[in-house]
Amino acid sequence: MDLTQALDAAQLIGIDWGSSSLRAFLIGADGQALAQRSTGQGASTLSGGVAFAAVLEQVAGDWMHARPALPVLACGMVGSQYGWLDVPYAACPADASAVAAGLRRVAGASGPAIVPGLLHDGGALPPDLMRGEETQIFGALALRPELIAAACIVLPGTHSKWARVDAGRVAGFATHMTGELFAVLRQLSVLGRLMEASGGGAEDAFAQGLDMARDHGHLGLGHQIFAARSLGVTGRMAQDELADYLSGLLIGHELGAGLAWRAEAGLQDAPLALAGSSDLCGRYALALRRYAGVDALVLDNTAPAGLLYLARAAGLAAPASLLTENAS
Amino acid sequence: MDLTQALDAAQLIGIDWGSSSLRAFLIGADGQALAQRSTGQGASTLSGGVAFAAVLEQVAGDWMHARPALPVLACGMVGSQYGWLDVPYAACPADASAVAAGLRRVAGASGPAIVPGLLHDGGALPPDLMRGEETQIFGALALRPELIAAACIVLPGTHSKWARVDAGRVAGFATHMTGELFAVLRQLSVLGRLMEASGGGAEDAFAQGLDMARDHGHLGLGHQIFAARSLGVTGRMAQDELADYLSGLLIGHELGAGLAWRAEAGLQDAPLALAGSSDLCGRYALALRRYAGVDALVLDNTAPAGLLYLARAAGLAAPASLLTENAS
Repeated sequence: MDLTQALDAAQLIGIDWGSSSLRAFLIGADGQALAQRSTGQGASTLSGGVAFAAVLEQVAGDWMHARPALPVLACGMVGSQYGWLDVPYAACPADASAVAAGLRRVAGASGPAIVPGLLHDGGALPPDLMRGEETQIFGALALRPELIAAACIVLPGTHSKWARVDAGRVAGFATHMTGELFAVLRQLSVLGRLMEASGGGAEDAFAQGLDMARDHGHLGLGHQIFAARSLGVTGRMAQDELADYLSGLLIGHELGAGLAWRAEAGLQDAPLALAGSSDLCGRYALALRRYAGVDALVLDNTAPAGLLYLARAAGLAAPASLLTENAS
Repeated sequence: MDLTQALDAAQLIGIDWGSSSLRAFLIGADGQALAQRSTGQGASTLSGGVAFAAVLEQVAGDWMHARPALPVLACGMVGSQYGWLDVPYAACPADASAVAAGLRRVAGASGPAIVPGLLHDGGALPPDLMRGEETQIFGALALRPELIAAACIVLPGTHSKWARVDAGRVAGFATHMTGELFAVLRQLSVLGRLMEASGGGAEDAFAQGLDMARDHGHLGLGHQIFAARSLGVTGRMAQDELADYLSGLLIGHELGAGLAWRAEAGLQDAPLALAGSSDLCGRYALALRRYAGVDALVLDNTAPAGLLYLARAAGLAAPASLLTENAS
């Protein structure tokens, strides 16, 4: 499909605008991306409305000019207090209507609407937060209706999210800082000094880290990660395997806590779905199988489907039922 | 006591030479420091024997020239492969004689002897390592003979060590990267952005973090630390309290794992001693009492006593018995 065809078929211009990057999509009636572009100009790199507007114009200006009536919907850290517009969090439990009701539009003719993040009030426990992942969760529900009744949806990443879906609502969720721990430990700590290569190739070392987390996790994460140094110093593991071993330990600890949380929520027999980048989803699917024999449903990037789903719930895009009638 | 008196009474020049700093001591017959000096020229900041020798001369040259026959003994990362001389680790279980047998002397007239680190071979588990803390442990045994039969000795720090003492030997130990996790999370992660002040003043927030780790630690460290962000973003905790909350969480997770490890080793009725900087020992003593009702024996810096104990075990310094006879 060339750009003209994509523009003709598009129902929505969707923007997944996180801290460190932006992805823009022309989204078709089935929630799939007909065209996409990306830049490294994430919300944390920008300050002030003029800067955000300029990046949006640069990335998707031609789309917006070609189809001026097409709605534009953005999600992610673009809606934070350090983003383009501070959009208040919607509270869990929240279904698509509740999230859609929290959309805020940036002032000005070409200002996009922005999806609110979600806040899970933990009661006696600290609150938890997400911005952008709520859209991926609703995308998963749009693409896989069997998840609507009850599911555990895991979004691996810098700040992984484990979300509990109950009757179409995001009932609650928990963040795990797995990706960020990996990054800061590699970059700054004594562990990083011995590590070579970027990780991802040493499957045995990854599996060893996972097994250590599963079988001896009671020894503590803060203890176990030191092995990524001691194994290197003593020459018992090759230096180009240490990063994968550390990754296995960190993901293993996330799975241990996440699966216990899922069981506590009574979701052990409900489907577990993974959404996000295919590399990371693949790594987590492998890990879930090895760690606990759990077969995860691996979804592609569900942000475009989620943006369309929320745009429809907000009345910005034509409802699916209408489209189906038109097509028949 | 002025320097001349200290030099007259000294039995040993001891150097605690870690990665990031050096402390030099004139050590008396009772293992106490009669004089001390410190610099930031840790082993990780230096490369090559000439550089190490120059720093030693600069810090303790006048002591060595005034008492050329006084033995000089160093411990810590100065004995690592990136230090002055790569001194092979001694293996656990190790008593003072075994460690003393592993001392290596730097070539040259003014070259100090260096204490070996300890390696605990974990069998099916990864090995664990220490350099410098073994000396503090033997210092604790020298100062407090009631610890010799059986004790758990905790050395809080960048890489905290929990050591098991059995019949005068270091039977095994476990490292916890608590201090380093705190530092890298504050410096580099998204958590640090909200944090103000250096931490240490907000006792309530520290206690809250401890309690969260104790009562809800099964939710996972990687999850719980995100609260140091979510509590800040939602305004539920003041920004100048977040660092102490994070510190409480991290120390709480260390205590949870460390106390379980201690119980597994059958040491729950043996004394638990804390050695190291008095600030950090005080913080851990408070934490142990709150977390588990454990009263710790708080020792001062035990490195000088440990250096003397090991120097005597190696025949470098006059044995205590001889001194006692001389004094009588």
